[in-house]
Amino acid sequence: MNFTKMHGLGNDFIILNQLADTQQDYVKLAQILCDRNTGIGGDGILLILPSTIADIKMRILNIDGSEAEMCGNGIRCFAKYLYEHDILKKTTFSVETKAGIIKPSLQIADQRVKQITIDMGQPILERDQIPMIGPKGQVIDEILDVAGQEYKITSVLMGVPHTMLFVEDITAIDPSVLGPKLEKHHKFPQNTNVNFVQVIDKHTIKVKTWERGAGATLACGTGCCASVVASYLNDFTEDTVDVQVKLGTLHIEYRPNESVMMTGSAIEVFSGIYDIK
Amino acid sequence: MNFTKMHGLGNDFIILNQLADTQQDYVKLAQILCDRNTGIGGDGILLILPSTIADIKMRILNIDGSEAEMCGNGIRCFAKYLYEHDILKKTTFSVETKAGIIKPSLQIADQRVKQITIDMGQPILERDQIPMIGPKGQVIDEILDVAGQEYKITSVLMGVPHTMLFVEDITAIDPSVLGPKLEKHHKFPQNTNVNFVQVIDKHTIKVKTWERGAGATLACGTGCCASVVASYLNDFTEDTVDVQVKLGTLHIEYRPNESVMMTGSAIEVFSGIYDIK
Repeated sequence: MNFTKMHGLGNDFIILNQLADTQQDYVKLAQILCDRNTGIGGDGILLILPSTIADIKMRILNIDGSEAEMCGNGIRCFAKYLYEHDILKKTTFSVETKAGIIKPSLQIADQRVKQITIDMGQPILERDQIPMIGPKGQVIDEILDVAGQEYKITSVLMGVPHTMLFVEDITAIDPSVLGPKLEKHHKFPQNTNVNFVQVIDKHTIKVKTWERGAGATLACGTGCCASVVASYLNDFTEDTVDVQVKLGTLHIEYRPNESVMMTGSAIEVFSGIYDIK
Repeated sequence: MNFTKMHGLGNDFIILNQLADTQQDYVKLAQILCDRNTGIGGDGILLILPSTIADIKMRILNIDGSEAEMCGNGIRCFAKYLYEHDILKKTTFSVETKAGIIKPSLQIADQRVKQITIDMGQPILERDQIPMIGPKGQVIDEILDVAGQEYKITSVLMGVPHTMLFVEDITAIDPSVLGPKLEKHHKFPQNTNVNFVQVIDKHTIKVKTWERGAGATLACGTGCCASVVASYLNDFTEDTVDVQVKLGTLHIEYRPNESVMMTGSAIEVFSGIYDIK
């Protein structure tokens, strides 16, 4: 079985072209292939499948065999692969995902995909839809008591619940200290992702994310989007912001009442052949 | 650059044939390739190099770029690769390593390498050579105070210092609880690896290892050997023992005053091409 390994800001995937063969047990396959010691290793597998309602279909199965609805880092890899491997030679196309139809736009130079833009949808700001317990309204620069200490938070729903804390110096932040306490705070009935945000200037922030259920990760696409929305709502930044994470930068544009547009790169690491025993 | 990914009991390596090209910056290469998110992923790279004093030379570079003297799991992968990829079509050959010349013996069936036996050398039992602080003699079934609690330990030097604790039920053992305390116990001036050993019968033990400097690992070859030596010295087992670890079994024969012979398998996971940018 041929595969290609790619990553978006360190969030890594095994790409499998299944246009001609859609009959695999993908749950088991994801578990076997994603194992970092005995398999190929990855955060998940990305399946390229035929679609009847879009140009193509993407499925993402995580390392534990569970299926993800969508993934910003994953779909950038997916889109770059389709173009560079001559499966869809267009700069925009429609992709069927469990979160609906997504339309990536590609920036091409020298026949290579340099950047991919994804419409990440609209953030939801109403407290009860995030969801967070408390009075009606938005959660902007609000004081929250966490284990006896007070923190100022901003929370939004960006596909999943995200809570932002603005900090002076991100290098001093270890997300595993406060992250788990805030993630499971009783005011967030479905828990929350936690983003630590340092504002560099009106168009630049740095972010470290503690992901709900996954812990500290190298990069979280929705977390970066939510951090830009929160920075804008607090008047710390304009509506177009470069978000610096450990392994690179995402360019994010917040169009209030419309959408969050996320632009970033993807990297093809290697291709190989795996024999299923 | 062509590569093959292999593992021995989950201890995984990127095999690089460098017989024709020995001029790489291997320290940097190991760091880039072993990264589990942005590279191929592995515990180390295994380099196949020409030798002037043996049939072939093996170098092992860890994920941090440091060089290992030898590795029992690694050399099984190395030996299987040489035979199955037609580099050395012999069932025994000599390999130059930083720990001296090692002679693997292969068991072949249907043109495949089923098992590989490695002479792991002789264990050293004298306390001052392990090294451990205390009176002259061997360290067998000795009481040691660890953070206010007493444990019965047996310690040997099997290339590196190993301390064994015999337990009733290995499934209940989390090596990260007692492991780090014993690893850095003041009586071991060079620290010690820690093996938790459950004796199943006269020819079978189960082992979990806490590796000095690396923590809980999937399998430690020298730890399995040391555990067999300790089981024999305590009269719990005979001199030939199957050692069960998480992902498989090693067959180990202790020849007192001679050597420890370790036999186990290796698995080729996939081959691929990595373009160095």
